[in-house]
Order: sequence, then structure tokens, then C-alpha cells
Amino acid sequence: MTKPLALGIDIGGTNTTFGLVDREGKLLYKSGISTTAHEKIEDYVLALREGLQPAIALAGIDNIVGIGVGAPNGNYFTGEIAFAPNLPWKGVIPLAHLITEAMGLKVTLTNDANAAAIGEMMYGRAKGMKDFIQVTLGTGVGSGFVANGQLIYGHDGFAGELGHITVVRNGRKCGCGRFGCLETYASATGIVRSAEELLAGTDDPTPLRTLQGKVTARDIHLAADGGDLFSLALFEYTGMILGEALATAVAITSPEAIIFFGGLASAGNLIIEPAKKHMEANLLPIFQNKVGLYQSALDGSNAAILGASALVW
Amino acid sequence: MTKPLALGIDIGGTNTTFGLVDREGKLLYKSGISTTAHEKIEDYVLALREGLQPAIALAGIDNIVGIGVGAPNGNYFTGEIAFAPNLPWKGVIPLAHLITEAMGLKVTLTNDANAAAIGEMMYGRAKGMKDFIQVTLGTGVGSGFVANGQLIYGHDGFAGELGHITVVRNGRKCGCGRFGCLETYASATGIVRSAEELLAGTDDPTPLRTLQGKVTARDIHLAADGGDLFSLALFEYTGMILGEALATAVAITSPEAIIFFGGLASAGNLIIEPAKKHMEANLLPIFQNKVGLYQSALDGSNAAILGASALVW
Repeated sequence: MTKPLALGIDIGGTNTTFGLVDREGKLLYKSGISTTAHEKIEDYVLALREGLQPAIALAGIDNIVGIGVGAPNGNYFTGEIAFAPNLPWKGVIPLAHLITEAMGLKVTLTNDANAAAIGEMMYGRAKGMKDFIQVTLGTGVGSGFVANGQLIYGHDGFAGELGHITVVRNGRKCGCGRFGCLETYASATGIVRSAEELLAGTDDPTPLRTLQGKVTARDIHLAADGGDLFSLALFEYTGMILGEALATAVAITSPEAIIFFGGLASAGNLIIEPAKKHMEANLLPIFQNKVGLYQSALDGSNAAILGASALVW
Repeated sequence: MTKPLALGIDIGGTNTTFGLVDREGKLLYKSGISTTAHEKIEDYVLALREGLQPAIALAGIDNIVGIGVGAPNGNYFTGEIAFAPNLPWKGVIPLAHLITEAMGLKVTLTNDANAAAIGEMMYGRAKGMKDFIQVTLGTGVGSGFVANGQLIYGHDGFAGELGHITVVRNGRKCGCGRFGCLETYASATGIVRSAEELLAGTDDPTPLRTLQGKVTARDIHLAADGGDLFSLALFEYTGMILGEALATAVAITSPEAIIFFGGLASAGNLIIEPAKKHMEANLLPIFQNKVGLYQSALDGSNAAILGASALVW
């Protein structure tokens, strides 16, 4: 190959996936390594270097413009991962620096939600938009805010923590140590908490009852698809909390669209419709019926790699 | 004079003030007209043209680069005022166009809170900052969000409505028709509502009691300055609600500072200290002890003119 290419790396809590992406967002090669197999960051970087060799051989090292990395708690300004609760390496890890040293390539790093927002803007549903919000409804809730065509990083690189705005006063305990954060309700784990609470507190019939104690978001999605009223009520409740939080976000940045990504977002209209209804009910009249809510147009398994690679350009 | 100058116009609910401002933010001339005396917008624009003549004569028309206008519900993109509840002219008013026609000068218009943010960035406490929030605590609550050195206008020009995020579910009725908006608590009128509620609901001794039914924010400020515990509790409560809302704003845009402006902000640390305390208590650890809360450094009566004039440059 002789055209300029980027390496995109998505570091997840369990697996790290990476790929070779061209300027148009075409994924030419994809592979991965375990994130959790290496307790020491130095060993992880060595494994990453080894894992990337086939991609580099395929592209030709001279054609690779740089490496983009999306990682939980990644900081665009410093290139560091800072106190990521779901990664094996504690404290502050100068990951961009370590990968640059190992690979001899320019490395740009940001958090996974911001990487997804950039991918969506370059290759996905937000193509051409200058003001939108990308919301990842996964294990937690991540977000990337774009205004004036630029990602909002904030003064320290940590902006976009919609998942940690308080939505219920003295609400559910969050992994961050606080209470009532959006992600304790409107994530894959949040809807499962709602399900377990409602299963324990009612006798309503539902196919979920046989799964009690080990319900997943996917189970609730499938049951709702099958018409289970209990599961539909769970989506309505989750959408209500999410919609109220979205109304707050809209009042601040007035986006053209909000784009959902991640495991819970794969439920599509089951979550988007109640979120839209409750968002609209909480908007100032000047904002009503103007904000589009969409499911991401990016292939879920590749979007994070595309987004990370887009950092390079 | 032979240096380039801007005309800044601040349209308030009662009075319109305007002035001649140089590039360094020096106010060289100031005057005003009534906002309310003219029911028809055409008559208002005629009165404005007449009022501006001395300023234009002083500057020399050729030295005036343009006119900047700050107005409630002003839209930077369209140059219109849209459904401003506190102005005499109803519906959508193409004000920038009307002033351009009357004056033969380029007119840039934005809402009053955004104008204040630009003034603060060019001449005030936020000089040199790229990420900050300007919050006006006046009759209502206005805000201007700056990220990456640019004002966030949103896709439609209406971004920055922090005053209308819901802070208390099913809370106080707001002028916008919704319930529990920040500005029903954390504005000059909001703290008065809190005072009247608390006066009616308790027998606690306070100098405010003799004023019951006609308490002002200024009365509460003066009583608190004098050590009145009742009034101090009102600031504590108001600061708590404000601080919680600020924590939400910080999670989204991660600003370097939040700068307060307007009547209630003149209470200084009486409002800033409790707001800071409750904001910090609601922040993710990564945001704690990083955001400065400051009172505006701009002279209150001139800041809006300075901000409006700054739109020109």
C-alpha cells in the first residue's frame, strides 16, 4: 500500500482492539490483544507492539501517519490515562509517551467517548455537523460534546462527563463514590439495577423473573422486543432519567443532534423514544422539536477503532 | 478622534444603555434611552438612532467599525430577538437588520449573557482564558459558555441557558412555563422567593420580617452583611442550589473558572462561598479544587456595553 494510513487503538476494560484505517474511514485490517493479561503497563506496551506488527507490515511503516488511541480516562492534553477504575494500571500512566517510545510513531490519545464522537463526526451520523453530542450507553455512560466543529476538552482535557451529572438527589451509589449519577440509571448496568430492584419489589409477571440475580441488559432488550410490559416499563423509566439529563445538556450546548452508541443504544427506539419524549417535556420552547436523537451509524465493533484512528488526521 | 471605535448597545428590560468603546475596552462616552417607552419597534429604532447621534459626532462616523448589541433572547446567527418575555416587542424582531438600515453600520447581535461573557474574556476576569463560564445572577440567570476560546452558540444560536436547567423536580414555577428551573432559586428574584417562603413558614427573628411582602435581594444582602442568621441561611440555601447546578456544568465543559455577574453576584462571597462548597461536594474527584469561582472584574453598569462592543472586533 502506498497511501497514508492511521493506526487506531481502542483500549477497553477487557480487550484492546486495533486496526489500520484509511483517510475515508475504511478499516483495512483489524486485530487485538487482551487488556487484562498484563499487570505491568510496560508488558502491555510490549504486547501491543508485537500485536501491531502485522498491521505495520501490511501498511509499510512509511505510510503510517500516526497512532490514535481511545482509552477510558484518557486525556488529550497530557496523553495520560488518569486513575481509570476499569483498567489494570493504577495512578497516572503516560501511555501516549510509552507507545511513542515503543513504536517510533506520533501518538494522539483521548478518552473513549471523545474518540467515538470524532469517529461519528468524520465517518458516521454526525458527518458535517458542527454541534452535536455523542453519548455512549455502555457499562457506564460516556459522552463527547462537539461545539463549533470542535470537541470540548475543557481546560484540563476532562470535559464531557455527562455520565456523572447528578440526576437523582441521594440516588444510587455510583462507582465514582458519589450518589445519583446518570450512569447508575441510564447505562447497561443501570437498567439491570432497575430490573433487579423492580423484580424484588413487585410480583409482576415477566420472563426476567426466572433470570433474577443474573439479568443482563440484553435480556431486558429481548423481553421488551417480545412485548413484555415489565421490560418496556424498564425502558420507559430509563428513558425518562436519560431524557431529563439530555434536556440539561441541550440547554447548555444546544446541539443539532444527540447520537447514541454502545450496548444499551443497540436497543434503538426502545430507549430513544422514551428519552426523546422526556427530553422534549423538559426543554425550553426555543429548543423543542429541533434536536435529532439517533442511533450511531457506525458499526459497533469497529467504531471505537475508527474514532481513535480519526485522531491522527 | 481618529482611532477605530465600536458602539456597544445593551438592551435591558427597562433601559437601553450604549457607549463608545475603543479596542482596549475603554468607555469613552455613555448614554441611554428608555426601552419601554416605544411599543413599536420602529419607534424604538428611531429613538435609538437619535440617541446615538452625539456618540457618532464625537467619534466621527468613519472611525466607527460597527455596532455590537446585547439583548435578551438575542440570536447571534440570525440577528433577531425571538420571543423575549421582558421586552415590549413580541414575536421575532429582526433587530440587527433594523439597526443596520437605520444607521448604515454593520451590526452584530447576541444575547446579553453571551455579550457579558465576551466582555469578560476581552477586558475582564477571563482575559486569556479559553474555557470558562460566565453566569449572570440578575432578575433571571443567564450564562455564556466559552470552550476552546470560542463562545458556544449551539446549532441555532440559543446555547447557554443554564438558568433553565431543572434543579428541583416539580419545583418552583418558572416564567418559562416549566418547573424547578435554576433561575427560580439562584437569581435575585429567586432568593426573594426563598425569603418570602421562609418568612411565611417560620417565626425566626430577622430584620427582613418587617419588610415581608416587599423584600429585595439587596435587603437580604445587607441583612446578611449585618450578621442576620436568617439571611445567611438564605444565601447558604441559594448557594447550595447554584453549586449543584455548577457541578453539572463543570462535568460537561470542565472550565478553568466560573465568573459571576449581575445584581445577586454583587453579594460576593455571601453567594460564592456556599456555591463553591456545594459545587465541590458534587464534583468528580478529577474536577475538584480546580475551578475558580470569581466575581466579575467589570464595572457592573458598563460591563454589558463593553461586552456588546466587543462583538464588533
